[in-house]
Amino acid sequence: MKKISPLAPSKFPAIPPIAGVRLGAAACGESYKKRNDLLFAEFAPGTRVAGVLTQSQTPGAPIKWCRKLISSGRARGLVVNAGNANVYTGRNGDAATLRTAKAAAKLIGAPAEEIFIASTGVIGEVLRTERITGSLPGLYQKLTQTAWHAGAAAIMTTDTFPKGASRRVKIGGERVTIGGIAKGSGMIAPNMATMLAFLFTDAHLPVRLMNTLLRGANERSFNSITVDGDTSTSDTCLFFATGAGSRHPPVVSASDKRLAAFRAALEEVMTDLAQQIVRDGEGAEKFIVVQVTGAASEAAARRVALLIANSPLVKTAVAGSDPNWGRLVMAVGRSGEKINPDRLVIAIGGKPVASDGKLAPCYREAVAARHMRGREIELAVDLAVGKGKATVWSCDLTRRYIDINADYRS
Amino acid sequence: MKKISPLAPSKFPAIPPIAGVRLGAAACGESYKKRNDLLFAEFAPGTRVAGVLTQSQTPGAPIKWCRKLISSGRARGLVVNAGNANVYTGRNGDAATLRTAKAAAKLIGAPAEEIFIASTGVIGEVLRTERITGSLPGLYQKLTQTAWHAGAAAIMTTDTFPKGASRRVKIGGERVTIGGIAKGSGMIAPNMATMLAFLFTDAHLPVRLMNTLLRGANERSFNSITVDGDTSTSDTCLFFATGAGSRHPPVVSASDKRLAAFRAALEEVMTDLAQQIVRDGEGAEKFIVVQVTGAASEAAARRVALLIANSPLVKTAVAGSDPNWGRLVMAVGRSGEKINPDRLVIAIGGKPVASDGKLAPCYREAVAARHMRGREIELAVDLAVGKGKATVWSCDLTRRYIDINADYRS
Repeated sequence: MKKISPLAPSKFPAIPPIAGVRLGAAACGESYKKRNDLLFAEFAPGTRVAGVLTQSQTPGAPIKWCRKLISSGRARGLVVNAGNANVYTGRNGDAATLRTAKAAAKLIGAPAEEIFIASTGVIGEVLRTERITGSLPGLYQKLTQTAWHAGAAAIMTTDTFPKGASRRVKIGGERVTIGGIAKGSGMIAPNMATMLAFLFTDAHLPVRLMNTLLRGANERSFNSITVDGDTSTSDTCLFFATGAGSRHPPVVSASDKRLAAFRAALEEVMTDLAQQIVRDGEGAEKFIVVQVTGAASEAAARRVALLIANSPLVKTAVAGSDPNWGRLVMAVGRSGEKINPDRLVIAIGGKPVASDGKLAPCYREAVAARHMRGREIELAVDLAVGKGKATVWSCDLTRRYIDINADYRS
Repeated sequence: MKKISPLAPSKFPAIPPIAGVRLGAAACGESYKKRNDLLFAEFAPGTRVAGVLTQSQTPGAPIKWCRKLISSGRARGLVVNAGNANVYTGRNGDAATLRTAKAAAKLIGAPAEEIFIASTGVIGEVLRTERITGSLPGLYQKLTQTAWHAGAAAIMTTDTFPKGASRRVKIGGERVTIGGIAKGSGMIAPNMATMLAFLFTDAHLPVRLMNTLLRGANERSFNSITVDGDTSTSDTCLFFATGAGSRHPPVVSASDKRLAAFRAALEEVMTDLAQQIVRDGEGAEKFIVVQVTGAASEAAARRVALLIANSPLVKTAVAGSDPNWGRLVMAVGRSGEKINPDRLVIAIGGKPVASDGKLAPCYREAVAARHMRGREIELAVDLAVGKGKATVWSCDLTRRYIDINADYRS
């Protein structure tokens, strides 16, 4: 049994049913023994979909399939297998994805082009689909509106806990629900959606609006986390809106005031899931919040924050509970972004460590060291040149990361 | 005692005397106990200097000092201390550098503006100079032409072995000598010279020509290595030419045919030192050569090679002797450089692993696994779009890297 991350939430959240979404999980045995490794979801007719997919130039077969489908904006099903990413598998890989989509489409009674596929796991091994397609009919009989925990668990690979989140808000006085599940633990870096994440709502939304909402929130959630700076070939974030649950008034613009609560809730769900991924970072013992302020722009602030959050020297210092702020100076210095070195402020745990180009007069190493011994580490830098700010979440780099990745396949 | 890297050369090379260069080392006690931590070198009148310094925006006081001096092209001395980098130390740091330069200048009988200073070690601690300036007079009395090993050892921090290299070649029929020493083990990434390296020759060269030679060779040597992707605040590569040793005919152009052998030898010395730094990478157990061919340009090839060489997932796979070529696919995919995914070729140990978008028919995992169990790992990728190529050197990422960096200061 894998040891559960010390940063895991105390339990999987209660996610309410979402009208128009039924899901379930099964142990198809394609990659794992004795655990669920297959997720199947069916969506009500009329369900709309928006997505953000990896920018990798060597994407998996499921990514190529989803890219083709996504422009139609229509979705009736989702199949996800864990253990084999179906990446770099040539035509056999494309055929495997198509076979899976066709099998699911037949059960749902929809075109294969409305079945979204995601695969996660080892790269470069041909995906055999007999066990997947063989398991789908039995699984389809058992789909329910409540299998969130089982679904989130079935898509895990090196994850140590299933990840879910939800919010209920109103659009024009009518209640709608947003639910989401995600997986991710290693090969996590911010270049579009860097993991698998699936978001569901019963709201009725036009596809163009869904894309606007998803992309905006994605930048400040999944694109603001990092575990190891490596970008996956299979990153997928899909957002399904069934329109089946609520008679809220139609909304067409992202700036519509009636959408403000929904918009905020979607970003909250995504941020919650993104933070859970970092909390399950391979080998993670500490959760790191990096806040950068005073940058020339929001984008500049995010780049500096990510450099700090990705630095092996910063991450190992955190692992060792060492308030080694010199490494923050190093990371800021190498960013290439505009900074004012003589006015820079660095803080650990909310207390200034360095300012005006040298150690802060009030700095007490014992206080910083006490903060560094905790589970939640706050690192902040003010670049002293503008108003741009960003927050990025990361985890420490420990021996366990090496252990996990030095023998992932063996 | 630190365990010497298993990748270390069997012994420190024999470096011949270089006319016009005298050096020595001493235990000044500023940072380390019971070992030499101070290097002092004197150059003959007329010595010229060229340099490449870190691009960090939070550079150390010695970097700021060297930047100011380097444009004159004149050098009479070099002082290096190990253990304290004198970075982010405000005006006190600048004053410490000036005091050291003045003390050395007085002994040599030269202006302080001809004394180059480098410091390496912990960031953010004020450098006390009493022990340094107090040790210089005694050390000056003992400078010799042969203290290469002692000099290279005195500038080490987390290094486990001293690094030196030399070559003898002819310019216009007259023999000249090139010698070099370097240090570096962590915070090593390719953004200008990423460590301390000092190169010496008795050739007589104009400063402009020295800069051309140094920058060209630097790109393919020190800028082609990585240990952890983090760029130091103190990176310094200085090239001193005394002109005291040889009556070779004057050369003014880098394209002068009489300079071809010298030019090649300088790059060999720098590449040798660069590779020694990687072989002493913190925690390194394996030396990795990444070759990228078929890229759109040499710069594109180097960027892809560096992404592979910096990927924690590739480096941990190497640590675990796992021929996990899927991670090479991932690293190539995230580069953003032009590739032909359907014609890409990936090889491990010289044998094709993947080609034409899938596993190579002749691939045998046992053969790749045998190669991966060795000390010298060859990873090669052909991007199948052009003629650009580059070679980059790296090392694996092991538990020892974490151990070293999680408690560097404690």
